[in-house]
Amino acid sequence: MSPSFASRLSERIRVLDNPSVLGLDPRREFLPETLLLASAARGFNGAEQVAEAFGMFNRAILDALQDCVACVKFQSACYEQYGMAGIRVLAESIDYAKSLGYLTILDAKRNDIGSSAEAYALASIGQSPLSDGYWSAMDADAVTINAYLGWDGVKPFLEQCRERGKGCFVLVRTSNPSAVDLQDLVLHDGRKVYEAMADLVAAWSLQLDPDEEFSSLGAVVGATWPNEAKALRSRMPRQYFLIPGYGAQGAGAADAVAGFASTKGGLVNSSRGIMLAWKKQGRPEVEFAEGAREEALRMRDDLREALIHA
Amino acid sequence: MSPSFASRLSERIRVLDNPSVLGLDPRREFLPETLLLASAARGFNGAEQVAEAFGMFNRAILDALQDCVACVKFQSACYEQYGMAGIRVLAESIDYAKSLGYLTILDAKRNDIGSSAEAYALASIGQSPLSDGYWSAMDADAVTINAYLGWDGVKPFLEQCRERGKGCFVLVRTSNPSAVDLQDLVLHDGRKVYEAMADLVAAWSLQLDPDEEFSSLGAVVGATWPNEAKALRSRMPRQYFLIPGYGAQGAGAADAVAGFASTKGGLVNSSRGIMLAWKKQGRPEVEFAEGAREEALRMRDDLREALIHA
Repeated sequence: MSPSFASRLSERIRVLDNPSVLGLDPRREFLPETLLLASAARGFNGAEQVAEAFGMFNRAILDALQDCVACVKFQSACYEQYGMAGIRVLAESIDYAKSLGYLTILDAKRNDIGSSAEAYALASIGQSPLSDGYWSAMDADAVTINAYLGWDGVKPFLEQCRERGKGCFVLVRTSNPSAVDLQDLVLHDGRKVYEAMADLVAAWSLQLDPDEEFSSLGAVVGATWPNEAKALRSRMPRQYFLIPGYGAQGAGAADAVAGFASTKGGLVNSSRGIMLAWKKQGRPEVEFAEGAREEALRMRDDLREALIHA
Repeated sequence: MSPSFASRLSERIRVLDNPSVLGLDPRREFLPETLLLASAARGFNGAEQVAEAFGMFNRAILDALQDCVACVKFQSACYEQYGMAGIRVLAESIDYAKSLGYLTILDAKRNDIGSSAEAYALASIGQSPLSDGYWSAMDADAVTINAYLGWDGVKPFLEQCRERGKGCFVLVRTSNPSAVDLQDLVLHDGRKVYEAMADLVAAWSLQLDPDEEFSSLGAVVGATWPNEAKALRSRMPRQYFLIPGYGAQGAGAADAVAGFASTKGGLVNSSRGIMLAWKKQGRPEVEFAEGAREEALRMRDDLREALIHA
């Protein structure tokens, strides 16, 4: 029996005294030119050149933040853009992050039904059958999922959580302006759609780990909606909230920790804020990792301060 | 200006007089053993052995059905299970299907916000930036998407539809039993959540191609809910319905065509029904492609018959 994702997460956050998540969502457009040149010099071209540069970028930032940041979240889309080379670098980056002690979240927002949902669960946090044994494509510690399809699309992921000590985060309230289009529609019983989703997540988690303080089935709750996050905490007392929107999307530390259960139960993500810190700080691009570290430490202190007043 | 996805689709269905979609969702468990052995004999092992066998399986079935089936749908999860080898075979299979004249649908149910949604759109139906030009990871003709995140998660996909003659299918009513968990909740105005999603899809498509009879923004509507499909047609008069559930999931031809606009506007998918026909027919496994063809022709005739009585 593996220790649960929630227990591993709680411990790591406690030790580092930091609920930050580093978001590694690299793009060709904002990658330091040095890395693209280094990748080309090593003989890579085309999609491989970009993917290989993503790998160098990730490793340098992971190295720089390993003693202060608890988790790293990889936005799958960024890597999928570069096909098999991107997928290789994504898997290698997850491996590398785990070797440094990070908990890894594959931000893939996967969803499907029955056996296809099972295949996504195996691809992201499980093992797939080979002729001789089993093999993990990604083996992240956790994955984000979209539960529009209901319980039978969620169940296969929970089986991996149970069997392999993994975690999931269900999209409840996303951080974007158009989240309101569907998520804010009002049901006949007065709940909004995202509140109904929250109630489903809370109920589903009772099938996974009813006796734990926090569940390995968490929820994505955008920091750009602090009042909603506060209200969602009462519907999901046992969920870890994965909270995007801090920094680049405009939310501050007080907004980001609004949904915490007192000082616990939350994970605050920053992607561009950390990845592109060197630009904002006016550093030369070769100092991108130092810039990321400076920003990650500032964010950590910002969150600690906000949690004292929460 | 590329011809639109909807116009290419209408033409192909008209020529073949068949709205069938071949679902290529291969699994290790049900692959003919011969292919796994052939893959091993060619020197592949581990994940590559399975992926390479998927490729052989796909090519044989695509060859066998090219003169009768309009579209092919690839379930992304099956390939993602095998990491970079799976992604390579998925891209190669899409290419091969296009070379035979099929329209290709990447069933990936992607979703995210802002720039991440854009990355998914580029990965599936667009082109991503390189140091020297652009590159397509998949370049499918269309992709399935999940719109729980609202308009700003859909918009980047519609840009690819407009610029590159591509298509999208938004999940509206899925074919699984648990679809009711969220999709059937009743709003204060009497609509169900999936009806609200249908209204959003119809409205969004007016931003893409208001003057076309059918839009390149379609909808996924499960054949297992024929009454709902019929009612959804009035909410989405211009949408192509991509209809899963025929065959293996229990829906018959009459159920499958229930949501058609008269005899048009629908695409009926069969995955296991065609892929595993050889087993049901009692054929030896080496005849898997002949079995698939026999079932595809039976399905075509079944749908034609149902459309006469629709």
